[in-house]
Amino acid sequence: MRIICGYILLLFMLGKPLAKGQNGIVVFQSDFGLKDGAVSAMKGVAIGVSPTLTLLDLTHEIPAYNIWEAAYRLHQTVPYYPKGTVFVSVCDPGVGTERHSIVMQTKSGHYIVTPDNGTLTLVAEHLGILEVRQIDEAINRLKNSGASYTFHGRDVYAYTAARLASRTITFEQVGPKLPDEVVRLPYQKAEYSKGTVKGNIPVLDVQYGNVWSNIPRAMIDQLGLKTGEIVHVQIFHEGATLYDKAVRLVNTFGEAATGDDVGYVNSLLNFSIAVNQGNFSEKYKVFSGPDWKIVVSK
Amino acid sequence: MRIICGYILLLFMLGKPLAKGQNGIVVFQSDFGLKDGAVSAMKGVAIGVSPTLTLLDLTHEIPAYNIWEAAYRLHQTVPYYPKGTVFVSVCDPGVGTERHSIVMQTKSGHYIVTPDNGTLTLVAEHLGILEVRQIDEAINRLKNSGASYTFHGRDVYAYTAARLASRTITFEQVGPKLPDEVVRLPYQKAEYSKGTVKGNIPVLDVQYGNVWSNIPRAMIDQLGLKTGEIVHVQIFHEGATLYDKAVRLVNTFGEAATGDDVGYVNSLLNFSIAVNQGNFSEKYKVFSGPDWKIVVSK
Amino acid sequence: MRIICGYILLLFMLGKPLAKGQNGIVVFQSDFGLKDGAVSAMKGVAIGVSPTLTLLDLTHEIPAYNIWEAAYRLHQTVPYYPKGTVFVSVCDPGVGTERHSIVMQTKSGHYIVTPDNGTLTLVAEHLGILEVRQIDEAINRLKNSGASYTFHGRDVYAYTAARLASRTITFEQVGPKLPDEVVRLPYQKAEYSKGTVKGNIPVLDVQYGNVWSNIPRAMIDQLGLKTGEIVHVQIFHEGATLYDKAVRLVNTFGEAATGDDVGYVNSLLNFSIAVNQGNFSEKYKVFSGPDWKIVVSK
Repeated sequence: MRIICGYILLLFMLGKPLAKGQNGIVVFQSDFGLKDGAVSAMKGVAIGVSPTLTLLDLTHEIPAYNIWEAAYRLHQTVPYYPKGTVFVSVCDPGVGTERHSIVMQTKSGHYIVTPDNGTLTLVAEHLGILEVRQIDEAINRLKNSGASYTFHGRDVYAYTAARLASRTITFEQVGPKLPDEVVRLPYQKAEYSKGTVKGNIPVLDVQYGNVWSNIPRAMIDQLGLKTGEIVHVQIFHEGATLYDKAVRLVNTFGEAATGDDVGYVNSLLNFSIAVNQGNFSEKYKVFSGPDWKIVVSK
Repeated sequence: MRIICGYILLLFMLGKPLAKGQNGIVVFQSDFGLKDGAVSAMKGVAIGVSPTLTLLDLTHEIPAYNIWEAAYRLHQTVPYYPKGTVFVSVCDPGVGTERHSIVMQTKSGHYIVTPDNGTLTLVAEHLGILEVRQIDEAINRLKNSGASYTFHGRDVYAYTAARLASRTITFEQVGPKLPDEVVRLPYQKAEYSKGTVKGNIPVLDVQYGNVWSNIPRAMIDQLGLKTGEIVHVQIFHEGATLYDKAVRLVNTFGEAATGDDVGYVNSLLNFSIAVNQGNFSEKYKVFSGPDWKIVVSK
Repeated sequence: MRIICGYILLLFMLGKPLAKGQNGIVVFQSDFGLKDGAVSAMKGVAIGVSPTLTLLDLTHEIPAYNIWEAAYRLHQTVPYYPKGTVFVSVCDPGVGTERHSIVMQTKSGHYIVTPDNGTLTLVAEHLGILEVRQIDEAINRLKNSGASYTFHGRDVYAYTAARLASRTITFEQVGPKLPDEVVRLPYQKAEYSKGTVKGNIPVLDVQYGNVWSNIPRAMIDQLGLKTGEIVHVQIFHEGATLYDKAVRLVNTFGEAATGDDVGYVNSLLNFSIAVNQGNFSEKYKVFSGPDWKIVVSK
């Protein structure tokens, strides 16, 4: 008894057993906004599954039906969470159509619960796919929710994520295994060729109006560019040239004067361009999406 | 000692005793927005009462002083939280007037801390009133807050909710029992008569611009309408006809073409109307409130 | 063994040892907004340090680069959190310049992790400085984040705050002690002279458009003004008079008619002026900042 007592105490002292797998954290993303009760209803369902879950948010301000931006926000955030975290992403213009409801386990040990509509494009590419399972809605669906046809986010995705994160179910119990692939949205990849790098503008740094490219730091290095040097940047949209200037490459905004255009490497280690303490996007009418092209040379 | 040791361990292994009553979860709603520190100060007071509380949000984007919308958001969300959850709703245009500060216990086992100004209209109607108590501010008020005349949300409502949720006080210790009734806002109820259903538009699905009615699915069934069939929808505002069209009744948006107007049953199981992947409210200038009327027929 | 067992159990029954110091709560403030993944990445890093942390928000809607408003929101909120709470504030127009990254411990027992750029002006003044330490980034920086030049909020501030709050490090282990002073922004203080009080408008009550001054209730009392009496209010901006009216001093908005201008003492116990159920700021084009002046007399 004494030994058992001490052993059980030890378990308590070690906290929740984390071993492998899910860690009790659920992170929510959607295009629902925060003005109504939709996000809160999802969290109510989740905390009803287990009161010990930690519920956090990615963002709920994904522009309505913008799957690409949902994909980008996951890419920006998932790697910073501990292994075993379960993400729910609900940006679902095709709700009720034949897209699969799935849980993807990444090679980095994260889980993402989402409609398989392209939302996983960038996470699959950068973190790798370990295994994909289709949600068996006969089991993993909030009880008594059958008469509601439209709120998969609450009744299936939040519910399944909470059951998985709290270890109420194993990953296998999510549902049948699918092939190790997900729907991927086509987009312009970054490429180096003869002293020039081409890429696209996947997303803006919306709060500040900075423009982020998908060109990695390594390709800037390949151009032979060093901090403090001048870089030539061109931005095109459907054939029109919206920007064509030489700007200084800086490590930090503190190295530039207020109002200067500067090139820099952002927190995702990609080439970016900004007006120091200003809004580049507004000033030059530069926005993001697959039809935006950026060219960088020495 | 051994037995006691084992017994106490067992208690730990079972976690917090949930039995009946409050469950340690507080959910906040207000019209404060998230730009200043008001919501955060409420949470500071709550977590100061007990560090073990789980603090979540409904929404803080209720339009200023819009009691009706506060009532609707509670109606939309409360049923999805586990029994024993304590809600705080602060939409209080009459702060400091003679409205009571109360805690209502619903028949579903939820608690709502709020000024009694109509905020409880829909929850009282749909979940039922078990008991109402007036907050005794002589006891349930943040210490040393007496000189502050205006922030009941922080000093009384958040504080009382946290004490109740953490079982620092029992429901009886909130204050004296009031009659089992709350202030209710008048509104047009849904009614079926001779092949026509009349109702109102309580709220928009703000993120997408869909229009939600208070007409339940059962009344649509009463019209003899089936999925895929055509339904005749009219929308009136102060005598003017803003919409008069025949639309298809769908189970999921996937059944309609992009840009089509569609009728559907929303996540609350009420009749709703939308432009598929568009914004119905903006397109037809249809909004919500007690002065909006919707008529549905075959 | 029995005694040890009982003693350890006692420790469990008392919960986390709170004694002195940090309490496991981290509160985040920034000018990042909630549209992208920046705030969520900070929380991912924090919860990765310790899954037992409680993560809350102050606001992420600080206008971009507005250090003064960041200072004001801390002032408005910090005192309502329990001692030992760790705040992270990232409003950092000079990121990468020579400003220090510090943790300030207040005399009230709170910790604030921030660039030392004026963000601590009001908290230092009102709560007092107990000790200031510079973050040693050689130790307190997320592993493998060295190649990222710009996201101090995630890699240094959130990481250090989480380590401090979870007692992974002591306050001393943050880094070397600095002198007991922080960068302070100049601003017009409230002053009484011969029946007149002068002050400034540090901030608006943004959700409602009410105007808050820095004039404490005690100075209103000094004018000999009582609730229900008439007070003369003038508001100036760069020499121009934007407002010059006599308004009633009320305890609660319920004492005034809808649309009336009213003077009142706000939740921070400072003189404020509002349109009852309206938006004073919009109506009179009155905003906030160091160049706004308010004069109150009998």
